[in-house]
Amino acid sequence: MTTDTVPKEVALSVSLGDGSKITVAGMAKGAGMIHPNMATLLSMVVTDATVDPELLQEIVREAADGSFNCITVDGDMSTNDTLLLLANGAAGAPAITKDDAESYNEFKDAVCKVARKLAKKIVSDGEGATKFIDIHIKGALSDQDAKRAAKSVANSALVKTAFFGEDPNWGRILCAVGYSGIEVDPSQTDLFFKVPHGKKLQLVSQGQPLEYDETEAHEMLTGRKVCVIVDLHLGPGEAKVWASDFSFKYVEINAHYRT
Amino acid sequence: MTTDTVPKEVALSVSLGDGSKITVAGMAKGAGMIHPNMATLLSMVVTDATVDPELLQEIVREAADGSFNCITVDGDMSTNDTLLLLANGAAGAPAITKDDAESYNEFKDAVCKVARKLAKKIVSDGEGATKFIDIHIKGALSDQDAKRAAKSVANSALVKTAFFGEDPNWGRILCAVGYSGIEVDPSQTDLFFKVPHGKKLQLVSQGQPLEYDETEAHEMLTGRKVCVIVDLHLGPGEAKVWASDFSFKYVEINAHYRT
Repeated sequence: MTTDTVPKEVALSVSLGDGSKITVAGMAKGAGMIHPNMATLLSMVVTDATVDPELLQEIVREAADGSFNCITVDGDMSTNDTLLLLANGAAGAPAITKDDAESYNEFKDAVCKVARKLAKKIVSDGEGATKFIDIHIKGALSDQDAKRAAKSVANSALVKTAFFGEDPNWGRILCAVGYSGIEVDPSQTDLFFKVPHGKKLQLVSQGQPLEYDETEAHEMLTGRKVCVIVDLHLGPGEAKVWASDFSFKYVEINAHYRT
Repeated sequence: MTTDTVPKEVALSVSLGDGSKITVAGMAKGAGMIHPNMATLLSMVVTDATVDPELLQEIVREAADGSFNCITVDGDMSTNDTLLLLANGAAGAPAITKDDAESYNEFKDAVCKVARKLAKKIVSDGEGATKFIDIHIKGALSDQDAKRAAKSVANSALVKTAFFGEDPNWGRILCAVGYSGIEVDPSQTDLFFKVPHGKKLQLVSQGQPLEYDETEAHEMLTGRKVCVIVDLHLGPGEAKVWASDFSFKYVEINAHYRT
């Protein structure tokens, strides 16, 4: 651990098609310089399943795309992010192959889930983080467009400081969607805040602010976790990006931290 | 003024080819959400020269490219930056045309200079700014590449907090050049710090850190202005971008400021 404040570990057991049990376990490290395109982030995922190295490589890429490549703390991509996936076959279970679709999917889902949980732990422990922001863009022309807009929101200093201030500043969010450069029709855009497993509040409908209760909106942001949902109503594209906020502590850590 | 702490005004008189005098004067406003691609930034430049509207439009574009489009406070492009250039001919000087190259160049240089000074004043008064960082990328394959790398450095939260901490962290600077995506050969890259009208210190030569005096490097960053020069030694491309640092005050202003 460098500026990490907690260790990040996840383990998961799953049953394969033939009933045999395998375990997928992982750890990750990193708190700043987090904007992986799998670049200072280190993560190891290990399993006792039996898997061909080429298939492992294919699965680890898919797992990285849906986990570590969906997070940001500060928008600074590191020069050396690493995600390793190792399989030793110690469970004695049949080898994972695409021919056995059930086992393959069980295994792949387990790896993706472990990677996603580790990636979220990295964001939760991001340098100076007081919030975990789940940014969900829907209705974009493509998934790539949605991811580009979500990353733009996730990396906006103005959005991140607003969340630190627990300020329901939807204007900054839509501004960042706009300057991401993707296709947007403001007159069709909806925006919601949602507390995980809790209340959902619409703030913007078809580009126009609704008469929502400002105090209620602010209160939704006082918890540690919050979802932002932007629906562009243009197509099937969708993406989620997970980000931390921008606090005094982030500045303190990075004005004075040296390796 | 919104979060501006000082008004920003510049005036300049120049002599045209025939000896007649004209004046170019401007003002600008804006302190946050500053990453113009001429988008909340407002600037007006006026002149008593006589100029055809089409020629004015051409000159204002060139002036914006070399001034407001070279600055960043927080990387957040606004939805409504404005730069207006108005000419009323009140000086009674001959009309500016490209046929009279001397007068044309004198006038264009004056407009560009006023715009550049205003743009730098915006950065100096950037929200929470304690530093004015002049980022100069040389030796890139093209000017566009150089500008892309300079903006990547200028917008890096890690670079900006390091300058706030007066920390000569050249690694964060080279990292941001690298993830900008332009062509770089680390084994050819040099990096210098320079105090305007003062000392120049090389920290990196051909990708390797030199044995510079850490205290001396730190002291160069204690003033308000500092230049970073990165020479990629690959081609003729060159660009300058002007940026502020990232301070506690920026977070404070933006966690609590609402329009």
